[in-house]
Amino acid sequence: MTFPSDPRIAVVGATGAVGRVMLNILAERRFPASEVIAFASARSEGQKVPFGDDFLTVRVLDQTAFEGVDLVVLDTPDEVAELVAPQAVAAGAVVIDKSAAFRMRPEVPLVIPEVNPESVRGHRGIISSPNCTTVGVVMPLAPLHRRFGLTRAIVSSYQATSGAGRGGVEELHEQVLKLVSEVEALSAGGGESLAPKPALFAAPIAFNILPQIGSLRDGGFSSEEEKLTLESRKIMGLPDLAVTATCVRVPTVTGHGASVYVEFAEAVDVDEALEILAGSPGVEVDELPNPLQAAGTDSCYVGRIRQNPSDPNSLCFFTVTDNLRKGAALNAVQIAELLLPPA
Amino acid sequence: MTFPSDPRIAVVGATGAVGRVMLNILAERRFPASEVIAFASARSEGQKVPFGDDFLTVRVLDQTAFEGVDLVVLDTPDEVAELVAPQAVAAGAVVIDKSAAFRMRPEVPLVIPEVNPESVRGHRGIISSPNCTTVGVVMPLAPLHRRFGLTRAIVSSYQATSGAGRGGVEELHEQVLKLVSEVEALSAGGGESLAPKPALFAAPIAFNILPQIGSLRDGGFSSEEEKLTLESRKIMGLPDLAVTATCVRVPTVTGHGASVYVEFAEAVDVDEALEILAGSPGVEVDELPNPLQAAGTDSCYVGRIRQNPSDPNSLCFFTVTDNLRKGAALNAVQIAELLLPPA
Repeated sequence: MTFPSDPRIAVVGATGAVGRVMLNILAERRFPASEVIAFASARSEGQKVPFGDDFLTVRVLDQTAFEGVDLVVLDTPDEVAELVAPQAVAAGAVVIDKSAAFRMRPEVPLVIPEVNPESVRGHRGIISSPNCTTVGVVMPLAPLHRRFGLTRAIVSSYQATSGAGRGGVEELHEQVLKLVSEVEALSAGGGESLAPKPALFAAPIAFNILPQIGSLRDGGFSSEEEKLTLESRKIMGLPDLAVTATCVRVPTVTGHGASVYVEFAEAVDVDEALEILAGSPGVEVDELPNPLQAAGTDSCYVGRIRQNPSDPNSLCFFTVTDNLRKGAALNAVQIAELLLPPA
Repeated sequence: MTFPSDPRIAVVGATGAVGRVMLNILAERRFPASEVIAFASARSEGQKVPFGDDFLTVRVLDQTAFEGVDLVVLDTPDEVAELVAPQAVAAGAVVIDKSAAFRMRPEVPLVIPEVNPESVRGHRGIISSPNCTTVGVVMPLAPLHRRFGLTRAIVSSYQATSGAGRGGVEELHEQVLKLVSEVEALSAGGGESLAPKPALFAAPIAFNILPQIGSLRDGGFSSEEEKLTLESRKIMGLPDLAVTATCVRVPTVTGHGASVYVEFAEAVDVDEALEILAGSPGVEVDELPNPLQAAGTDSCYVGRIRQNPSDPNSLCFFTVTDNLRKGAALNAVQIAELLLPPA
């Protein structure tokens, strides 16, 4: 099965937070698609979504949806991906899946193109793109690992509401509108009752932080924390890497932050680490990485690079990445670019 | 020098974020003061500040300000505290200082009343109250240390804007008002230029996070991070404790959060750790500690208690504390209560 140089592409979940950015990025990068077809759920049927200077009419998946389609990019809930991906593969398409449904299957490559592009080669129809938080953390960790040998990581995240989809941003927006006139009063307490009832999040997110993302698993780690641990191991090929994550939702719109503390097999020279990061594709060293700056851009920003003075094998840094772009849509488009035959 | 059972108290910095809360708490707890006098800078002279059901008229410090005063509570910048504290001691008052000016001096007790009340005894006129972030982290760490022997801590903070004073909250408020209509647009980038020019913070704080608080010191740690390290060591009597902190400002009003990863000399049973925390004064175990819930209350909330499965001597948790109350004003009032003669 050779991949064409001008594939027909189906984007499933085209009206979602990531789906819309996906269409933007395909247009921006002039991806050589012969056609791009936008699919979404029934309630979006017939809706127009922007694609470059053009608009696409949203269609609903049916039995013949993937006929003649070369590439299907899925940005759907896990349950939908589990149903749709095998259908797409059966129809002869390659699937790039943004969901968690297939990421940990041994036969499915889990790919960050700057880190492990070679793993795409062995695919059997489905290629997974990692969770948005994983991408932002592994982008700087992988080049450091190649030099110093990563032994463990302790990560605390600062995740934006768009990571929960358009509904996450809408919930933040609605609550901020309600609470902005009460800012002075919030210190006195009662902020929880002043805020509109949360729907998507477990408690109000406006002017708040919520230190749990996803459901709790055995041992008290959340599903989001488990993803970061397992996916980081798979992408870097370190099956026993000790990763301890704490994933926290913060009231930002786009741009996931992470405070990263790592230990290596070898002593780390901080200046050398900085040089390695500055020279890594997709990574940009910055004094004060922050979500407002990162949103809408393609880089993984890394700053506050320093060392625990009591451990010469340690390094800590702060990193911020647009979770919709490099954390999701851009990474998927870069995977698609790996599939194109050499020009 | 015996401390009276009905001291005359001067609150210096009474119009600030912490000063106002201080007056509230003195009234709430019916602190047995014979008089409370409010001092602030010249631009607040004559202003009325609430004190219980009453109001105090703000005065400006002069040569005779501390005559007949038994207790001076300082909530001022370090430079002001350095000038005023010795004057207050010379006038015969005991000083409880909220600033960083004296915290690390060997002769000055640095006190969290639930943790090291005994250290008040040796004071020579000045007693320091710790930085707001330190209080919230040491409250749960100290009882765990007594049982398991703390060997190192890795902390990432989520600090509210009121930690930077009333101006911090005002800057957040002003920027949120401006940006709330642009929430959808923030994902596309350009958020930094849409926001009003920052004054107190280095970049816009609305819908953003800023991974640096205070100025950078040798080794790349910030002054805020250095405080957490040095103060934690002093309060717990662990001069060599390895603390690696990353202090981050988030767009909340009140309630500092911290993601804490610690290692102990002994293996930790998670259920026992949970029992110890639940039984510790001032600590409350909670499923989802968050700033909106913590604001206006006196507890240090601790949740997400779990263990890195690859290290039986480790523990991690998330903690949130009202930075104006237990992180500052309440802690100072509790220190004052330690000074009162037994009833």
